[in-house]
Amino acid sequence: MKRRDFFRNTALGALGTALAGPLGAIGQTQQRNDNLDAYGDSTGHARNIIFMVSDGMSNGTLTMASLLRQRKEGRQSHWLQLYESGKAARALMSTASASSLVTDSAAGSSAWGGGVRVPNGSLNVGADGTHYTPILQKFKKAGKATGCVTSVPITHATPAGFCINNSHRGDMAEIARQYLPLRFDVMLGGGREYFLPGTRKDKQDLLQQYKTNGYTVADNRDALLQLPLSPAVPVIGAFCENGLPYALDREQDATLRQQLPTLAEMTTQAIRRLSLHPKGFMLQVEGGKVDWAAHANDAAALLYDQLAFDDAIKVVLDFAEADKNTLVIITTDHGNANPGLYYSDKTDDRFDKLQHMRHTNDWILNGIQRDTTPAALIARIEHAQGIVITPAEAAAVLTHYTRPDGEGLYNPRKLPFKELAAIQSTHTAISWGGMDHTADYAELAMTGPGSAMLPSFVKNADLHRFMLQAAGI
Amino acid sequence: MKRRDFFRNTALGALGTALAGPLGAIGQTQQRNDNLDAYGDSTGHARNIIFMVSDGMSNGTLTMASLLRQRKEGRQSHWLQLYESGKAARALMSTASASSLVTDSAAGSSAWGGGVRVPNGSLNVGADGTHYTPILQKFKKAGKATGCVTSVPITHATPAGFCINNSHRGDMAEIARQYLPLRFDVMLGGGREYFLPGTRKDKQDLLQQYKTNGYTVADNRDALLQLPLSPAVPVIGAFCENGLPYALDREQDATLRQQLPTLAEMTTQAIRRLSLHPKGFMLQVEGGKVDWAAHANDAAALLYDQLAFDDAIKVVLDFAEADKNTLVIITTDHGNANPGLYYSDKTDDRFDKLQHMRHTNDWILNGIQRDTTPAALIARIEHAQGIVITPAEAAAVLTHYTRPDGEGLYNPRKLPFKELAAIQSTHTAISWGGMDHTADYAELAMTGPGSAMLPSFVKNADLHRFMLQAAGI
Repeated sequence: MKRRDFFRNTALGALGTALAGPLGAIGQTQQRNDNLDAYGDSTGHARNIIFMVSDGMSNGTLTMASLLRQRKEGRQSHWLQLYESGKAARALMSTASASSLVTDSAAGSSAWGGGVRVPNGSLNVGADGTHYTPILQKFKKAGKATGCVTSVPITHATPAGFCINNSHRGDMAEIARQYLPLRFDVMLGGGREYFLPGTRKDKQDLLQQYKTNGYTVADNRDALLQLPLSPAVPVIGAFCENGLPYALDREQDATLRQQLPTLAEMTTQAIRRLSLHPKGFMLQVEGGKVDWAAHANDAAALLYDQLAFDDAIKVVLDFAEADKNTLVIITTDHGNANPGLYYSDKTDDRFDKLQHMRHTNDWILNGIQRDTTPAALIARIEHAQGIVITPAEAAAVLTHYTRPDGEGLYNPRKLPFKELAAIQSTHTAISWGGMDHTADYAELAMTGPGSAMLPSFVKNADLHRFMLQAAGI
Repeated sequence: MKRRDFFRNTALGALGTALAGPLGAIGQTQQRNDNLDAYGDSTGHARNIIFMVSDGMSNGTLTMASLLRQRKEGRQSHWLQLYESGKAARALMSTASASSLVTDSAAGSSAWGGGVRVPNGSLNVGADGTHYTPILQKFKKAGKATGCVTSVPITHATPAGFCINNSHRGDMAEIARQYLPLRFDVMLGGGREYFLPGTRKDKQDLLQQYKTNGYTVADNRDALLQLPLSPAVPVIGAFCENGLPYALDREQDATLRQQLPTLAEMTTQAIRRLSLHPKGFMLQVEGGKVDWAAHANDAAALLYDQLAFDDAIKVVLDFAEADKNTLVIITTDHGNANPGLYYSDKTDDRFDKLQHMRHTNDWILNGIQRDTTPAALIARIEHAQGIVITPAEAAAVLTHYTRPDGEGLYNPRKLPFKELAAIQSTHTAISWGGMDHTADYAELAMTGPGSAMLPSFVKNADLHRFMLQAAGI
């Protein structure tokens, strides 16, 4: 299908020849107009690009979230509906960074964002110090509107890799400052702590500075939903201190639901504003807490956040279907923890427990106090997930909270996520290979103008030029 | 691309309209003749079908084997070369069985082979006792030659699912008997114990019966390679007692190399014979020990057997490229153990140890005796894999051999594969999520006549009708 030639030539190739294969004569003469890239603006380019990242999504994550949606709601995930519609091109994507076969999110986003693989930890800065211009800056320079939406801090690696240069992804206070003069049109997510004087080392009130410089600052869900549609005014929203709560925990808490938007809601608002722009736009949408859930081996968090990402896919595909000028890319930056639903004679029943879970392991473990009893923990887990663990298991989990030095109580990284996940595996049939990123080649889907040029196997960094060419930049 | 209509209509659809997307005008005017299904016989059908199964191949298995080939040999895996050539269609395949979200190999092969999902453990027999005709019987009835090649017993679930009906996959002695009257043209693999009087409960000499009934029996590699090309004579080869040795262990042993063919060699010989048939053929090729290695969390076994499968892919693609009448399908029946190469600051160096390994964990653990000392085990592992474990780790492994009842010494399933894999993880950066099958949607590649009709998402059982239609049966 000549997709392979795309990267060999600097210009996009013609696809003008009939795909009249040998099966063409057998039957079905009616021709449907659902070619992958049947639309586009008058120049043949995509006017808009929406790049969607389920961060740290292993194959098992996509599989299990789709199975959960099917069994709980009786419908296919939107991601796989896209495949069933016949309108998607797919690729397997090599995800390595300049420093390792296994990328982190900074190098992963930089590969797409800057077009060059950089070392892990770096945002569009090469090992030799070279700065590669991030794609949202290129799109902005070309006159397009730009934005990022995420469920983790808006200063986090994946959005930042499309926006700025910084050899240290961890310096999110600096990244919050770097965004200010760049005036991206819509920046929505968490990470409030990197914008406020009380939590910044330099004591600067960045949100006030954003306001002074003409931004609208959205402080909560209502403010976001009620924003006046004035496309010339850039909007920034950092809706909570750090990452947003997991979708499942938000769903159970009326206060959180009122204060914090979902990923789909942020995506809707971003597209509403960006699509007013006469020259089109580029938007990145990140399901960032999918990665965090995988790091924590937190099955309920993982699958319901993947479904929250799937809801955002629906928002995007509905827009793209109506707009007909939008290239949509849906992928992940790397695998994480390679979860799987494992074989046993009770696998289906165990997996179906996920349908009735109310809270994540994150919620369970962060609610444990130093004086929580085994009985109380057993009740807490049963309430949250319908799983009854043994007193011995409960006691083992609680040892992590009763150490003399208190280690583990206040540092989320020291909470016994691994231990709880191991206990749960026998109840859910879900197991994990580790708590970090993997080298797995990634699933990538594409639809809209240009998508027919997608090769079957692609390097992450090659997507950069692909997007520029698709948009005619 | 109208692939979605394939399964909605009973006849294959026309693809006669130009894929003239909006990018068609931008550049590159030269047209290449590498359409997915540019060939086929005069009826538009595939004359031959070769169905290749890397059994139990998780995404990480394909990824790591490809990375190993790249780093060790400086070339891409043949599987991914196919993608890079632009000649492959790809699908994500749902792998469930009738009884579970997670299939076993019997139900998995039966879905393709009989077109209906059956319960785990069953070969083309439904829960209600219905027998579904296996695809090789259908192809044989249509006048085509048929065969199976595998690295595990030829009576094992994956070949058997294309050949026979039996509600108990474990009854391989019976399956060896079932094959006899069916006269498939080429059946090559292991499983000699199911054919010989000394190891069959009924004491029958099946190999003698095969000879009496006009089969040629190939006893070893030389016999296979020197078989006269008489296509009317069916051939059976069961080259060793049970599964063939892992590819890596075979490579180190001159006797094994002389006695036992590789998967690629068996595939070559099968195609040589089958392709003489005037009406074409169907061949299944299984890399069956990929699954066994995953069950054992045996990284070297897994990756080198995946590469042995990859070598068989090259044999098949070379034939198909020259033949131009062959539909090639390359896939797996289910994930297994979801291995991954995990993030760390030493991941690449650790992974590169795989390049220099001489033997599998299977070889290491089966060579341990009751009196093996920790020092001897340390030396054995260093010799086999270049890894130096600690005396405490060696002692822990050896406890499995010194139990008073001797449990574990003679039963391969009780050998400490899990324990050794956990020790190795820190040396190789490879970890595992379990020791059994997973629900992961599977990678599926297709090339040749009919492949352009492949939908992006497909159920395993739907491949059955796809193949019949592609072959015009």
